[in-house]
Amino acid sequence: MSVTTPVIRRLRERAVDDRAALYDLLDEQFVGHAATVADGDPVVVPLLIARDGDTLLLHGSTGAGFVQRARAGGTIAVSVAAVDGLVYARSLFDSSMNYRSAVIYGVPEIVGPDEAGAALDALSERLMPGRVAEVRPSTRKELAATGLLRLPLEHWALKVRAHGASEEEGDGEDRGVWAGVLPLGRSWGVPQTSPLTSAGTPVAPSVLARAAGR
Amino acid sequence: MSVTTPVIRRLRERAVDDRAALYDLLDEQFVGHAATVADGDPVVVPLLIARDGDTLLLHGSTGAGFVQRARAGGTIAVSVAAVDGLVYARSLFDSSMNYRSAVIYGVPEIVGPDEAGAALDALSERLMPGRVAEVRPSTRKELAATGLLRLPLEHWALKVRAHGASEEEGDGEDRGVWAGVLPLGRSWGVPQTSPLTSAGTPVAPSVLARAAGR
Repeated sequence: MSVTTPVIRRLRERAVDDRAALYDLLDEQFVGHAATVADGDPVVVPLLIARDGDTLLLHGSTGAGFVQRARAGGTIAVSVAAVDGLVYARSLFDSSMNYRSAVIYGVPEIVGPDEAGAALDALSERLMPGRVAEVRPSTRKELAATGLLRLPLEHWALKVRAHGASEEEGDGEDRGVWAGVLPLGRSWGVPQTSPLTSAGTPVAPSVLARAAGR
Repeated sequence: MSVTTPVIRRLRERAVDDRAALYDLLDEQFVGHAATVADGDPVVVPLLIARDGDTLLLHGSTGAGFVQRARAGGTIAVSVAAVDGLVYARSLFDSSMNYRSAVIYGVPEIVGPDEAGAALDALSERLMPGRVAEVRPSTRKELAATGLLRLPLEHWALKVRAHGASEEEGDGEDRGVWAGVLPLGRSWGVPQTSPLTSAGTPVAPSVLARAAGR
């Protein structure tokens, strides 16, 4: 193996012990992939996620079976990732992605009926900031039908790659080939009004704020 | 429970038996969340994914331990999801997301050294179309160090929600509250040239094509 370019290689990928960075990732992402074990086999389902203080709320109609298994106790693992860019190195081997990824481990608690209202509000505030104040309160029946789990943010691992292309010296790359990063982000589209909405009703302020990137 | 609005409820969420829709999702997304079982506990890691014909290639330096476990055989489950929009209903309970999600189950094969070159090219073509032709060929040493898995696309489940806000009649929603969908997509940023690149080298055609959305 040829001589390593130390500064670049050192930063190639790193575990990050930074709770603020973890929270930023969780607050930005909508979906986590929650793994359990069923009869010895792995099961994984996407769930809505929302951080609530030092816990992670998990919600998903797709996860009905998941919630049943979680009710039985036992550890789950939740993976959350954001792709921030494609890294075009001058070899396929060194090509990569910029990303942030977290895995959280723990035994989730079922959110009980007494707590469900506050938890659903917290989930909504994270995903659709300001929306709680625009809609009617949740009914008791709705809260009873809401399957929310709460996972403490105690055991987690965060990995971040956030730098440019890297390569080892002497590996034969052609310096005339472009290397760099193509950043990737998300973008909100134009709000699509439902036919349920009364004619003339303006787009809700919470939606406009979301669309503006806030 | 009040009377259901049948047409809307029926479409609320559905399993889709459509291989083309599965392939579209896999071809568009970069990351899958792969679950295994280790000592009875669930483990999940994000991996680079790329469809290659009727198989899914899995790659990830973050998944070194994962590759080791996969080498020992056994079923894995891979979850891939795209969030296509936030659905603002007129209650929190009916608020939702538009999304596409797939879970693929199977026993992955290790991609051996003889096959690694073609598989790495296929992965690259999917993630960075056109890039293979711009860089030097992979070396034998690089291919030996590439940990790729291949999962047949035989056992999978796809779920799609792709419609507007829904609600049950008589649930007390205020028709003066806006309901609808805020679409979410991804957007490429401006390519960032690495200092490794020789001065005056133009951004590579493959990068420009990616940035243009192709």
